[in-house]
Amino acid sequence: MVIRYPNGRIYQKQQRAKTRIAEPSFANRGQTLEQQIEEANQYYLEKELAIIHKKPVPIQIVNVHYPARSAARITEAYFKTPSTTDFNGIWNGHHIDFEAKETKNKTSFPLANIHPHQVEHMGRVARQNGVVFFILKFATLSRYFLFFYEDFEPFWTRMLQGGRKSITLSEVENNSYELQASAYPELHYLPIIEQYMKQKER
Amino acid sequence: MVIRYPNGRIYQKQQRAKTRIAEPSFANRGQTLEQQIEEANQYYLEKELAIIHKKPVPIQIVNVHYPARSAARITEAYFKTPSTTDFNGIWNGHHIDFEAKETKNKTSFPLANIHPHQVEHMGRVARQNGVVFFILKFATLSRYFLFFYEDFEPFWTRMLQGGRKSITLSEVENNSYELQASAYPELHYLPIIEQYMKQKER
Repeated sequence: MVIRYPNGRIYQKQQRAKTRIAEPSFANRGQTLEQQIEEANQYYLEKELAIIHKKPVPIQIVNVHYPARSAARITEAYFKTPSTTDFNGIWNGHHIDFEAKETKNKTSFPLANIHPHQVEHMGRVARQNGVVFFILKFATLSRYFLFFYEDFEPFWTRMLQGGRKSITLSEVENNSYELQASAYPELHYLPIIEQYMKQKER
Repeated sequence: MVIRYPNGRIYQKQQRAKTRIAEPSFANRGQTLEQQIEEANQYYLEKELAIIHKKPVPIQIVNVHYPARSAARITEAYFKTPSTTDFNGIWNGHHIDFEAKETKNKTSFPLANIHPHQVEHMGRVARQNGVVFFILKFATLSRYFLFFYEDFEPFWTRMLQGGRKSITLSEVENNSYELQASAYPELHYLPIIEQYMKQKER
């Protein structure tokens, strides 16, 4: 069955990404962005390149049943709106914190499905010198962008000041790093962070 | 009602710590260790000293009910054993990752309620140069220790090699940093990390 978050996004069971033999095909295998990121994180974990995990879905537990001789069963609980980002962890001493968002829109990225308190969280982490970004997926175009918080923030501010409620594709192209889908992991995003950090350290 | 984790620990609703006027009393106000840490984290967040959050409890969702005109209701779910630590975040560019454990034991800290995969996770994060530690509470003695992973690891290994399944109080005293409970936040653990990092950087 399809389970949805309060924001309507589909809930994906956080299952361990299956290790596959690298495929010659570079085509999107129909995974959701979250599955693609989990696949990359699993690869990074196995190779110890980075330790990045998806945070569990925050849930408000109301009622739990304790059947004899079996596991506690939650019988009433509700989804809570996440107050932080979906993914965080560490790479080479750097704190990594990011949010994954996809859109079917072909011309711009709507800011509607980004929670203000998530952006506030990202700002706080950025001020503590974390590596903070979005991974944006234009699903229809099969295009992926790694959008660092400091480059994203002006567009968010523009919206808050009454400007457009989305970022045009060309603005995304000009202000973020495009991620080329590869064989395995399909969404190998770490090299872009490496490149970005090298530029910053210069 | 009391809700318990698979390990029997009591589940605490992750509610926002209330800001109080600093009290002259330095006595433990009967908070659980988790509440004490949440109080400190809330204080750090408000002052932007560090951004550290407790991870949501990992839950396996089996069934969700969607009543018309009201929030999705989870009607069947189960607790999953956490594969990482309870708390992580960032302080001054450093990735912070730790686990909080308490015991009623007065003479030693039992290793039984520490999950092997949590220790594995801590090792991985430490190898990525994160700041990794336990906050141990001897509840009966009202004593708190900040035990860094690199100092803790030999005692874990000792157990794995067939040695004692606990760390004696004197071993804890000699290999970790004692945290003095203060007024507010009661468990102000950040200064110890600061001190520890200064020593490492020397």
